[in-house]
Amino acid sequence: MNRLLVASVATLGALASLPAAAQFQKPEDAIKYRQSVYTVMANHFGRVVAMAQGKVPFDAKVAADNAAIVADLAKLPFTAFGEGTDKGLPQRAKPEVWKESAKFRAAADKMIGEVAKLDAAAKGGSLDAIKAAAGAVGQSCKACHDDFRAEKPL
Amino acid sequence: MNRLLVASVATLGALASLPAAAQFQKPEDAIKYRQSVYTVMANHFGRVVAMAQGKVPFDAKVAADNAAIVADLAKLPFTAFGEGTDKGLPQRAKPEVWKESAKFRAAADKMIGEVAKLDAAAKGGSLDAIKAAAGAVGQSCKACHDDFRAEKPL
Repeated sequence: MNRLLVASVATLGALASLPAAAQFQKPEDAIKYRQSVYTVMANHFGRVVAMAQGKVPFDAKVAADNAAIVADLAKLPFTAFGEGTDKGLPQRAKPEVWKESAKFRAAADKMIGEVAKLDAAAKGGSLDAIKAAAGAVGQSCKACHDDFRAEKPL
Repeated sequence: MNRLLVASVATLGALASLPAAAQFQKPEDAIKYRQSVYTVMANHFGRVVAMAQGKVPFDAKVAADNAAIVADLAKLPFTAFGEGTDKGLPQRAKPEVWKESAKFRAAADKMIGEVAKLDAAAKGGSLDAIKAAAGAVGQSCKACHDDFRAEKPL
């Protein structure tokens, strides 16, 4: 067992490209991380929206699976808006993210709450409930984007 | 209720920037999506690795939370390697991804299996078990990268 552990730890040591000690070693890492989370979230939310809009046939399991992914991801980006992460890569977070951090946090919490409701609605399997919850999620996205996201990369 | 639904659907209609009808409307969308999934996965796996390497103090709950995120994400990128997604954005997937698709799929399944074991180990809370499982995950990442990922963007 000890030998196996040594081999495993040696393998871990080879993973030099991974973030290790700190959550984000550089501001660029935090920016790339949060942008990536939003990209994946938007994709999976979009799949639910497509069903809510009737653009693709409603499939309760697909809706529930996608809403669950959105719920898993919703809390993640807000760990990555630390001080000093306003610069480092082209990105659209306005200075207000840091200047009005309580308001930004409230907007984030609103989205997280609406996403949890969408997850619950999708688990319930009612398309009407999903439509209503997805609309509320979309409004929470838009409200935060209006205040905190620039039209073009800064 | 009907009025609320109409309002919700109108809100959904405003979300024009979201992917809607198709899973990925353009090859660029698929490439950006899969790269984003890997970015988020690598970050959370890195947090487990940091504990396995003793670079940050072991916290069983943090390890379990992060391993669960990795497990949630592990299956996602492989929906985004469809035909025609080898070009569109700078990216490192070698032509072998499509030329040797069964081998690529096997490498993906290997990683997904090792990540599931890491998730189980982390839920169990034993640092030794996490070290061994994280080492196996790392080897499965490296094996696939060796065969299917270029050193530099293609």
